[in-house]
Amino acid sequence: DFLYALENDIKPAFGPTSELLDQYQCRGITIWGDHVRHIIDQGKLLINQAKSPSAAGLVTVLLEGAPNAGKTALAAHIAKVSDFPFIKVCSSEEMVGFSETAKCLSIKKYFDDAYRSPLSCILVDNIERLLDYGPIGPRYSNLTLQVLLVLLKKEPPKGRKLLVICTSSTRSILEELGMVSAFTTILHVPNIRQVDEIVNVLENSDVFSNDDINQIKKEIGQRRLSVGIKKLLGLLDLVDQAELKDRPRKFINILQEQKRFVEQGN
Amino acid sequence: DFLYALENDIKPAFGPTSELLDQYQCRGITIWGDHVRHIIDQGKLLINQAKSPSAAGLVTVLLEGAPNAGKTALAAHIAKVSDFPFIKVCSSEEMVGFSETAKCLSIKKYFDDAYRSPLSCILVDNIERLLDYGPIGPRYSNLTLQVLLVLLKKEPPKGRKLLVICTSSTRSILEELGMVSAFTTILHVPNIRQVDEIVNVLENSDVFSNDDINQIKKEIGQRRLSVGIKKLLGLLDLVDQAELKDRPRKFINILQEQKRFVEQGN
Amino acid sequence: DFLYALENDIKPAFGPTSELLDQYQCRGITIWGDHVRHIIDQGKLLINQAKSPSAAGLVTVLLEGAPNAGKTALAAHIAKVSDFPFIKVCSSEEMVGFSETAKCLSIKKYFDDAYRSPLSCILVDNIERLLDYGPIGPRYSNLTLQVLLVLLKKEPPKGRKLLVICTSSTRSILEELGMVSAFTTILHVPNIRQVDEIVNVLENSDVFSNDDINQIKKEIGQRRLSVGIKKLLGLLDLVDQAELKDRPRKFINILQEQKRFVEQGN
Amino acid sequence: DFLYALENDIKPAFGPTSELLDQYQCRGITIWGDHVRHIIDQGKLLINQAKSPSAAGLVTVLLEGAPNAGKTALAAHIAKVSDFPFIKVCSSEEMVGFSETAKCLSIKKYFDDAYRSPLSCILVDNIERLLDYGPIGPRYSNLTLQVLLVLLKKEPPKGRKLLVICTSSTRSILEELGMVSAFTTILHVPNIRQVDEIVNVLENSDVFSNDDINQIKKEIGQRRLSVGIKKLLGLLDLVDQAELKDRPRKFINILQEQKRFVEQGN
Amino acid sequence: DFLYALENDIKPAFGPTSELLDQYQCRGITIWGDHVRHIIDQGKLLINQAKSPSAAGLVTVLLEGAPNAGKTALAAHIAKVSDFPFIKVCSSEEMVGFSETAKCLSIKKYFDDAYRSPLSCILVDNIERLLDYGPIGPRYSNLTLQVLLVLLKKEPPKGRKLLVICTSSTRSILEELGMVSAFTTILHVPNIRQVDEIVNVLENSDVFSNDDINQIKKEIGQRRLSVGIKKLLGLLDLVDQAELKDRPRKFINILQEQKRFVEQGN
Amino acid sequence: DFLYALENDIKPAFGPTSELLDQYQCRGITIWGDHVRHIIDQGKLLINQAKSPSAAGLVTVLLEGAPNAGKTALAAHIAKVSDFPFIKVCSSEEMVGFSETAKCLSIKKYFDDAYRSPLSCILVDNIERLLDYGPIGPRYSNLTLQVLLVLLKKEPPKGRKLLVICTSSTRSILEELGMVSAFTTILHVPNIRQVDEIVNVLENSDVFSNDDINQIKKEIGQRRLSVGIKKLLGLLDLVDQAELKDRPRKFINILQEQKRFVEQGN
Ligand SMILES: Nc1ncnc2c1ncn2[C@@H]1O[C@H](COP(=O)(O)OP(=O)(O)OP(=O)(O)O)[C@@H](O)[C@H]1O
Ligand SMILES: Nc1ncnc2c1ncn2[C@@H]1O[C@H](COP(=O)(O)OP(=O)(O)OP(=O)(O)O)[C@@H](O)[C@H]1O
Ligand SMILES: Nc1ncnc2c1ncn2[C@@H]1O[C@H](COP(=O)(O)OP(=O)(O)OP(=O)(O)O)[C@@H](O)[C@H]1O
Ligand SMILES: Nc1ncnc2c1ncn2[C@@H]1O[C@H](COP(=O)(O)OP(=O)(O)OP(=O)(O)O)[C@@H](O)[C@H]1O
Ligand SMILES: Nc1ncnc2c1ncn2[C@@H]1O[C@H](COP(=O)(O)OP(=O)(O)OP(=O)(O)O)[C@@H](O)[C@H]1O
Ligand SMILES: Nc1ncnc2c1ncn2[C@@H]1O[C@H](COP(=O)(O)OP(=O)(O)OP(=O)(O)O)[C@@H](O)[C@H]1O
Ligand SMILES: [Mg+2]
Ligand SMILES: [Mg+2]
Ligand SMILES: [Mg+2]
Ligand SMILES: [Mg+2]
Ligand SMILES: [Mg+2]
Ligand SMILES: [Mg+2]
Repeated sequence: DFLYALENDIKPAFGPTSELLDQYQCRGITIWGDHVRHIIDQGKLLINQAKSPSAAGLVTVLLEGAPNAGKTALAAHIAKVSDFPFIKVCSSEEMVGFSETAKCLSIKKYFDDAYRSPLSCILVDNIERLLDYGPIGPRYSNLTLQVLLVLLKKEPPKGRKLLVICTSSTRSILEELGMVSAFTTILHVPNIRQVDEIVNVLENSDVFSNDDINQIKKEIGQRRLSVGIKKLLGLLDLVDQAELKDRPRKFINILQEQKRFVEQGN
Repeated sequence: DFLYALENDIKPAFGPTSELLDQYQCRGITIWGDHVRHIIDQGKLLINQAKSPSAAGLVTVLLEGAPNAGKTALAAHIAKVSDFPFIKVCSSEEMVGFSETAKCLSIKKYFDDAYRSPLSCILVDNIERLLDYGPIGPRYSNLTLQVLLVLLKKEPPKGRKLLVICTSSTRSILEELGMVSAFTTILHVPNIRQVDEIVNVLENSDVFSNDDINQIKKEIGQRRLSVGIKKLLGLLDLVDQAELKDRPRKFINILQEQKRFVEQGN
Repeated sequence: DFLYALENDIKPAFGPTSELLDQYQCRGITIWGDHVRHIIDQGKLLINQAKSPSAAGLVTVLLEGAPNAGKTALAAHIAKVSDFPFIKVCSSEEMVGFSETAKCLSIKKYFDDAYRSPLSCILVDNIERLLDYGPIGPRYSNLTLQVLLVLLKKEPPKGRKLLVICTSSTRSILEELGMVSAFTTILHVPNIRQVDEIVNVLENSDVFSNDDINQIKKEIGQRRLSVGIKKLLGLLDLVDQAELKDRPRKFINILQEQKRFVEQGN
Repeated sequence: DFLYALENDIKPAFGPTSELLDQYQCRGITIWGDHVRHIIDQGKLLINQAKSPSAAGLVTVLLEGAPNAGKTALAAHIAKVSDFPFIKVCSSEEMVGFSETAKCLSIKKYFDDAYRSPLSCILVDNIERLLDYGPIGPRYSNLTLQVLLVLLKKEPPKGRKLLVICTSSTRSILEELGMVSAFTTILHVPNIRQVDEIVNVLENSDVFSNDDINQIKKEIGQRRLSVGIKKLLGLLDLVDQAELKDRPRKFINILQEQKRFVEQGN
Repeated sequence: DFLYALENDIKPAFGPTSELLDQYQCRGITIWGDHVRHIIDQGKLLINQAKSPSAAGLVTVLLEGAPNAGKTALAAHIAKVSDFPFIKVCSSEEMVGFSETAKCLSIKKYFDDAYRSPLSCILVDNIERLLDYGPIGPRYSNLTLQVLLVLLKKEPPKGRKLLVICTSSTRSILEELGMVSAFTTILHVPNIRQVDEIVNVLENSDVFSNDDINQIKKEIGQRRLSVGIKKLLGLLDLVDQAELKDRPRKFINILQEQKRFVEQGN
Repeated sequence: DFLYALENDIKPAFGPTSELLDQYQCRGITIWGDHVRHIIDQGKLLINQAKSPSAAGLVTVLLEGAPNAGKTALAAHIAKVSDFPFIKVCSSEEMVGFSETAKCLSIKKYFDDAYRSPLSCILVDNIERLLDYGPIGPRYSNLTLQVLLVLLKKEPPKGRKLLVICTSSTRSILEELGMVSAFTTILHVPNIRQVDEIVNVLENSDVFSNDDINQIKKEIGQRRLSVGIKKLLGLLDLVDQAELKDRPRKFINILQEQKRFVEQGN
């Protein structure tokens, strides 16, 4: 496993990091509401803190939210915006089938490489997958947990600067594991919940006419939803296969079938 | 184990994929009711979504239902209908005795191969067996769970399209494991429950005369049953060994012995 | 362990299969009651189902009952009666000290060999021992469980026929493990419970005179017993060491000491 | 470990089996009461059953009782009395530091060797130690349990005879593990509980004068004790170091300190 | 892993020990209150005890407190002040990805090296990380626990002197593990809790003007806080990115958002 | 690990056994009370029993008491006094980082070596550390437990004599593990609890003047303490660093801070 890892961990599957960052936001970043703006602004502030020569050398941020909320795309966006000379993505996608040890050594390598660059950014995607978290048991890789707990606290060598951007959809688990307190800052990535926010997304797609959108707006009415941007874009793909005239109906139906309408206050 | 796996995972035991898909539906697909029609229609829609150039590159569907309900045959049917240039079956039958690692590498290989083809379909049969789920404990392979959770969410490279069709008879376990939320769509494969549905199957077999079938229809009367299509076809095999005249009686008896009649509403 | 297994799993310890089947019923099959007749008849029916070209290729049956009830002897009897060209016994006796992996590969080999023959019968003796079931914990080999769950459901290749006869004295465990639902048919092997059934066995042995048997019959009277045929034959061995005149008394005493008399209804 | 075991398991640490059997009863067998006589008689009966050509080929007996009760010495006595051509002792003393696998292979070897001899006796000492039973957890070697469960039920080849004598001080554990039901016969080895039984042992030693013994007898009076023969002989060793005149007092004192006097009825 | 460890454990990542000790206190030691003075004084006393020829050869001290309280910096300070000829830092930062065994051998090596020097000091940073403590389970490396329990009690060879300084933020866990009683002395490193203590730190930084500080002092008023010195310095880094005039407001806001104000008495 | 162990287990870290025995009692044995005298006397008696040709060949004794009570020093004292030709110390200090197997083989070697000498003594220090006992879980090495349970009961070969002296501060754990009943004799090593006993120790040291001691005596008054001799000697080391005149006060203060005064009756 060890050799297997060593040979593989440096070759991202599909081209260099910048391509990967683009792929993570392949459907762009729709500014569907204030939350999105806020996260992007905070990202810029953290980039500055990481660059500041008088501040500590390590800045760590956790982007946490429900599955499909758009965490990875936003993390990739911030990483790209930083324009640091060293940017790497550390993701379980690159480590499928790695042994615990191989995973840990691979993670360590990302940080060791970063320590050698004056200004670095590491995107650690989906921490719970790196931890091999399995809800029945529950189970997790304690080896990886220890490695992350150490690396998220270890200052880079004198004069080196490191910004670590992590994503996770299981914040409560990270809290139990004593990991949340290791972060400098925590940003919540919310689901879309307001009809206006939905409309912003629909207007950005080619699936509906303006009339359709108005119809949908009326149908939703005062009801609150909760749907991640990735899920929403997927639903639009499905609806896109239906006849033009059936689409608004079908869209509302699927939202209902998938129980996306929530009691107010949730 | 590793070598063992590498040498074996590419040679399906009995000929190429298309033969295997046929074997999985070796007793055909009897359209015993609307449910069957619905699943087949949905299958076609998903094939289109997977092919659509404007949609996301990954479509994942779970066919879930009781043991013997006909899940594998229907999954094989959809896969065959897709007529995608790359179709593979990933099943625990091909991995008997594999180590956890070998199993995971084998699963990964199916996906890696698929990523290289522009339009691919993978049938992942009996997920709970791939997960080595053992109800006492309970136990499962967390390694395999992690691999599946990653691969069911990982977009194929730009421009590549992948349709993943999974089957399982333990939906609630998959839910607990956080796996269900990873699927684009979920289709339920029900047991046969109505007397007319049974009759459709009996008429399709050579075991009973028309008079026999009428007699059976009367005997069942208003009672509700619950029997999977595979189980039902097996019962017919057994009844087929009895004398011609005893068959209707024997058929009803076995249904009763095996407690296939259920209280209404179940 | 692996090599160890490969070298050993094909050489049964004491000669070919047919000898082994004889050894398993070395004290014959005494038809001590209707239950015995019924099991033997059902065995024949299943053999026919397995042979039928129009039926599915796989028939699986579980013989379950208390320890010493005579399960293995009856399973061996059915296997022998089938007279199939390929008959093999898969038993933990042949796998003492095997590793989990070796055990699984060994089991798999029995099935792989069977798939190559047009008409095969495998006797899987004492499933709970193959599963390494240990009641404290409880513990079991999940690897073996998975292998058995797959193989008990996997159809042999087109045109091949396979009858699998399993025995177990822990039915409830198999049920918890989700194994019972994998069988085509389940047959219960009961303990001897009626005085007449006991008498049938005593008359078949040389331990008692007719007078002795009558005396024993009287002593038992209306009381119900519960004793497996293997246990009963063992008791007769012990009683046989005593003086002729003491034997009836001693026989009743041992039955009492070993608490073989049960409250009616149990 | 494996190699280590193979080189060691055939060389008993201190000479051949017969010497070992003598060492196990190095302080002789004092017939301190009826219980001792009864066990010895039953031993002879079992030897005959094992030899009888008309009986089954396997006889298994469990000697169970408190620690220090004299189980191993009595088992060794029966084994020696049998005078079978093949007698072997299978004890954890010979397997200190063996791995689970090595232990199992070693146990298996004793039985395989026995199967090759027409008339064999195996003394399996201290089953709970072979099982690596640890009360906190609890823990045990499931591998060894499975091996023992199989071997205690496996008939020797046709015409071969095997008597297996086991000892254990944790009967309730064996019962939980489903092991007790595997034995043909079970014999309880009790502690010494009556003053007359103690006196029998004291008279057999050189530690006390007749007057001393009478004094001790009076001191004990109607009180019940519970002390294993091995423990009692050890106490005499200790008392032997004291001045002649102090001994009766010291003996009673130690019995009291060690809480050997029990409430009547226990 | 073993080799990996051996090659790596002697080369600290960033230069020799003295540099490392400096890096651990890279933002200096601000004497923000009496607690800090007390810890530094006690450190000097312990250094003397360790040096005293008439005292025992081993002195062990635990610095325990909340995360970010400044434990490591104070431990580094004491180690540096001792000016012992042999000073080493044993930290999980140097052992990322080490196996349990490698970690233990590495720890042992620090002590073995120290035993060879007449006057040694070992800084064992973050014991819970060395123990691989994972709160869900909970899990820990028992191997490392045993090694530490032995080494924290083992006297150096005659005439050799060893001072061991440990840090931990999970005192209660160490207590449960029976580790706390192994230390000669325990020193608590508290969070900053008084407004005057905060002011001492602010005055030491360049972030605020004197007016700003007075404003902050007023805003805090009688409220109690609880913030570690490391956390506080981090907050100042962040506030430093804001406009000059916004800083006091922003500082108070972040303290509130992060729930640093506590109910009195906590 | 195995090789590692083999090369190391025979070379005690700091010279031969006799030196080690001296080091264990490097601050002498202060006869601070009757308990000490009693343990030393019992030690002599046990040495005689072990030597007696008419007694059994194995004598085992457990010295148990709180941490720092002086167990190891007293065990070393008895071992040294025995003056047996073969004396060895078996301690976890010599086995830091050994694997379970290596530990067990090492323990076994001590006993195997002892069996070859006519008159041997083995000091097994700190049994709970040999067992790798970790209180959270709890965890322990079952392998080592089994080895110790066997070796503490196994008679040396005919004519050989073996005295085993064990120490432990977790008697209740050993009891749960079924280990206590394996010992011939158990001796309790108490903490110092009486003011006169303390005074005996103070008078033996150079820290206080006679006046100081009288002052301390008065301050303690009727209060009961509980402090191990090792802890007490350590406190004196610390007090020794203070000014002459402050010492009595400081001594009482530390006793109070460390909660050494106990409610009467405890
Ligand atoms: N405002 C937005 N924020 C995030 N993603 C957006 C936004 N607008 C459009 N997208 C698109 O939505 C998708 C979000 O998917 P992403 O993988 O980031 O979700 P996720 O929360 O990481 O999902 P998962 O829980 O599966 O990890 C991307 O394709 C991205 O291009
Ligand atoms: N409408 C139908 N749907 C599914 N299978 C059908 C249908 N009609 C006939 N069959 C036949 O019934 C059998 C269904 O078996 P299948 O293996 O698919 O069941 P399953 O639910 O996958 O069982 P398991 O729970 O054991 O995996 C196949 O042989 C198939 O040819
Ligand atoms: N009617 C009968 N049914 C079964 N066995 C019989 C019958 N009559 C006699 N026998 C003899 O009784 C013995 C039954 O032993 P068998 O090993 O089959 O019992 P089992 O239930 O498999 O025991 P276990 O629970 O130990 O596996 C055999 O020796 C067989 O020859
Ligand atoms: N009647 C007797 N029964 C058994 N042993 C006796 C008897 N009389 C004397 N002895 C002596 O007592 C000792 C009994 O020890 P033995 O090892 O058999 O006890 P045990 O019950 O096996 O102990 P453990 O529980 O430690 O295994 C032997 O030395 C034996 O010679
Ligand atoms: N009085 C002080 N005490 C400790 N550290 C101080 C003090 N004044 C300033 N510092 C600085 O504060 C920082 C304290 O960080 P340190 O790593 O010691 O915290 P910690 O408690 O070990 O954190 P963690 O819980 O993450 O291990 C150091 O950079 C140190 O230079
Ligand atoms: N009466 C005494 N009994 C024991 N030790 C004494 C006595 N008088 C002085 N000492 C000294 O006290 C110290 C006792 O330490 P020792 O290591 O024996 O304690 P311990 O109980 O084994 O501690 P631990 O619980 O850490 O194993 C030794 O240095 C010994 O020389
Ligand atoms: Mg994501
Ligand atoms: Mg299926
Ligand atoms: Mg059987
Ligand atoms: Mg014994
Ligand atoms: Mg720290
Ligand atoms: Mg000690």
